[in-house]
Amino acid sequence: MARFVLTLEYFGAPYQGWQSQTGGRTVQDAVERAIARMKDTERRIICAGRTDAGVHALGQVIHVDLDKPWRTDVLRDGLNAHLTAAGESVAVLSVAEAPEGFDARISAIRRHYRYRILNRRPPSALDRNRVWHVAKPLDCERMHEAAQTILGKHDFTTFRASACQAKSPVRTLERLEVSRHGEEIWVEASARSFLHNQVRSMVGSLAKIGHGTWPISEMRAALDAMDRARCGPVAPPDGLYFMKVDYAVDPRVVPDGR
Amino acid sequence: MARFVLTLEYFGAPYQGWQSQTGGRTVQDAVERAIARMKDTERRIICAGRTDAGVHALGQVIHVDLDKPWRTDVLRDGLNAHLTAAGESVAVLSVAEAPEGFDARISAIRRHYRYRILNRRPPSALDRNRVWHVAKPLDCERMHEAAQTILGKHDFTTFRASACQAKSPVRTLERLEVSRHGEEIWVEASARSFLHNQVRSMVGSLAKIGHGTWPISEMRAALDAMDRARCGPVAPPDGLYFMKVDYAVDPRVVPDGR
Repeated sequence: MARFVLTLEYFGAPYQGWQSQTGGRTVQDAVERAIARMKDTERRIICAGRTDAGVHALGQVIHVDLDKPWRTDVLRDGLNAHLTAAGESVAVLSVAEAPEGFDARISAIRRHYRYRILNRRPPSALDRNRVWHVAKPLDCERMHEAAQTILGKHDFTTFRASACQAKSPVRTLERLEVSRHGEEIWVEASARSFLHNQVRSMVGSLAKIGHGTWPISEMRAALDAMDRARCGPVAPPDGLYFMKVDYAVDPRVVPDGR
Repeated sequence: MARFVLTLEYFGAPYQGWQSQTGGRTVQDAVERAIARMKDTERRIICAGRTDAGVHALGQVIHVDLDKPWRTDVLRDGLNAHLTAAGESVAVLSVAEAPEGFDARISAIRRHYRYRILNRRPPSALDRNRVWHVAKPLDCERMHEAAQTILGKHDFTTFRASACQAKSPVRTLERLEVSRHGEEIWVEASARSFLHNQVRSMVGSLAKIGHGTWPISEMRAALDAMDRARCGPVAPPDGLYFMKVDYAVDPRVVPDGR
């Protein structure tokens, strides 16, 4: 038996999120069905971060234990062929053999998300379901300034879904950058781990500051209140992309001389 | 009566192209229906360039004559509301009053297209219908070098659809740039006007050169042969974007002091 680590890209709109559901269409089910068609032993896959319904990924990471000594390129191409044939919006970007003890979820030391806001009057014809369309102008600099006030280790109860099942609401937010890219505003967040709905909750609150409805100081005041009622409206899933996962030893990077 | 000039963005995959068809779903029909819902006189719209089924636009330009003295922002927002309500993948980016004698098609002095190739082994999960997926590596430098050999005024019969209805096959190709952007290769073409399927025919032929199947010299040799049989396979519509139209006097640019 060998453990493989896979990087996945997916378009989240057609799915009810990552996690397998009876009778539901989920990304996990799509990938597990493709693996089953490879005629190896059927086993559950483990991901670095479970994404909600409608959320996309450019660099989700999973691991799976398989019985056959697959060539990594054969496994990648075979899974992509099955995913394409099944009409899934999921692609396997890379496959590597996992080092001893590697676990896609537990071994992850940092997760990176990007949130895309389309900030212009007309809606998007080309990026529907791929961005959050905000017609009213947003002040990107105000948003960035407010974002910097909540970096670090805090109780993020304010920015946590009521359904969140994490034992502790304490997280260390390492990066929360707000930048303009033409008609888009990107909010980029990095941390070891996030609470349920944390990124979308922070983005919804930052939008309040971008519109001038909230003063810049309200971002930190809302955090300090540790009160879910102080959170802005949660931003829709459409604009959220799970970008990348960092590992102390990244099996996807082949070391020199190997 | 006043003539208005509109810039449109659309996702081409759901449409059977630009031009109105009885019983068909076309971009022209979608826009004309939205205009009809504004309760002005129903008139045909004229576009700068008719796009084929599946081809997208970031900057299509149209003109339409209307009876009411519309405020341009009201017309833009009203049309977008009707287009969104009808589930169309079309957005009106801007509306301006047209100067005397302006015609979206006849007054155009240059048209710009971009063709996006996704050049990597795995298919795209996020950009399906938005790029041409070419799994085998393409040599971008070879493609660019070959592209430069067909710039200028020529008989483009080789790169013209057999169904093309233009009177003359002679066109002046002003720009044909091939460049790499991460996993994508872009082919950017500019000319006063193009023949039917000309960009996709040139891209399909350039791909032959990028794969090394054709020598670089074959691009010019194929052009000089003035023989449709010498064209490479026509690239699919998915990757083609109508980017921009130039006008000698651009009504969409508000002059200083106005």
